[in-house]
Amino acid sequence: MPKQIDHDQRKQKIAEATWRVILRDGMSGATVRNIAREANISPGSLRNDFPSQESLLQYAMTLVKERAGERILTIANQELPPKEKVLGMLMEIVPTDEQTRAEMEVWFVFTAHYSHQRERFDAGFDGIRNMIRIIIHQLQELDLLKPDIHLDLEVEKLYALVDGLALHAMLEPGRLDRSQIKAVLKSHLSSVCLFSS
Amino acid sequence: MPKQIDHDQRKQKIAEATWRVILRDGMSGATVRNIAREANISPGSLRNDFPSQESLLQYAMTLVKERAGERILTIANQELPPKEKVLGMLMEIVPTDEQTRAEMEVWFVFTAHYSHQRERFDAGFDGIRNMIRIIIHQLQELDLLKPDIHLDLEVEKLYALVDGLALHAMLEPGRLDRSQIKAVLKSHLSSVCLFSS
Repeated sequence: MPKQIDHDQRKQKIAEATWRVILRDGMSGATVRNIAREANISPGSLRNDFPSQESLLQYAMTLVKERAGERILTIANQELPPKEKVLGMLMEIVPTDEQTRAEMEVWFVFTAHYSHQRERFDAGFDGIRNMIRIIIHQLQELDLLKPDIHLDLEVEKLYALVDGLALHAMLEPGRLDRSQIKAVLKSHLSSVCLFSS
Repeated sequence: MPKQIDHDQRKQKIAEATWRVILRDGMSGATVRNIAREANISPGSLRNDFPSQESLLQYAMTLVKERAGERILTIANQELPPKEKVLGMLMEIVPTDEQTRAEMEVWFVFTAHYSHQRERFDAGFDGIRNMIRIIIHQLQELDLLKPDIHLDLEVEKLYALVDGLALHAMLEPGRLDRSQIKAVLKSHLSSVCLFSS
């Protein structure tokens, strides 16, 4: 195996161990010692890849973002009718299974931990608002938005709707299932777009 | 001063000290010792009112909920046109100043801490979904909703929109200000209600 791939896989293994520790014990449990134990390596070995706890946590969050980004890009590159494509991309942001719920929970615990450290916190880090901005502007360019739509307002509205749904789907997976989430998003898209519902 | 009022005020003072500690140090700092120091009382005296850290944290969160509930009720009891009243109530959920942002941040950190302890976590605790359900059903009874509205979907949609806006307003107070939040909520209400915008 080429050395770079080996190294990346090793870092990903450590990041995944970090997620498991955060999910189990919260951020207060996400120490280098605990994460090394979970990843089954020595703390010294972990420090080779990540010289600080900070760099490790940043990498673990970046990996959450990258995994979601890859899933969204896969859908964006498919040949699909616009509404189906937009719906599919949005559905990748809202957690609807164990794996994506875990990713969202890691994001949530991480954000709660860093949100009061304003200087180190970047709310735009996850790229979701930017993605939604691009979606709304592309719908506009394709003449698929209803007339009299205020673009900036629609970006904020869809962004809030998606993050709110993601929050509720994470906190109450039993109440809000995949089909309900899809129905809510479809209903919203129908209220702003010209394509039939 | 009657003893009960004195006692309640004392508990509120302790709860407010708890908020300050959570805002400053996160949940990991919210120990009985730290909170007692912040409230300027002895840990033993604090334990008279709150026998466990758990009971103190529950009370501090209940107080966040009660304060928001009181503000919302004040608006609900005013003589206002339906749209203005609904908008006013929703605006009390989304943090738009230092005080309500702090309340939201306490809620957020608290939720992140308890969310992975499923058996102790009740997402309906804050009463927001229930309030939104009542609002949508009252608009329906007043014949103010557009035809072909699916009530359950509209409850989920508005609930997600409001909590998403609250999350963004808390995390990015500089980007999303009061007038923008109001414009987003107004635009959404106009898309589902019959009253003019």
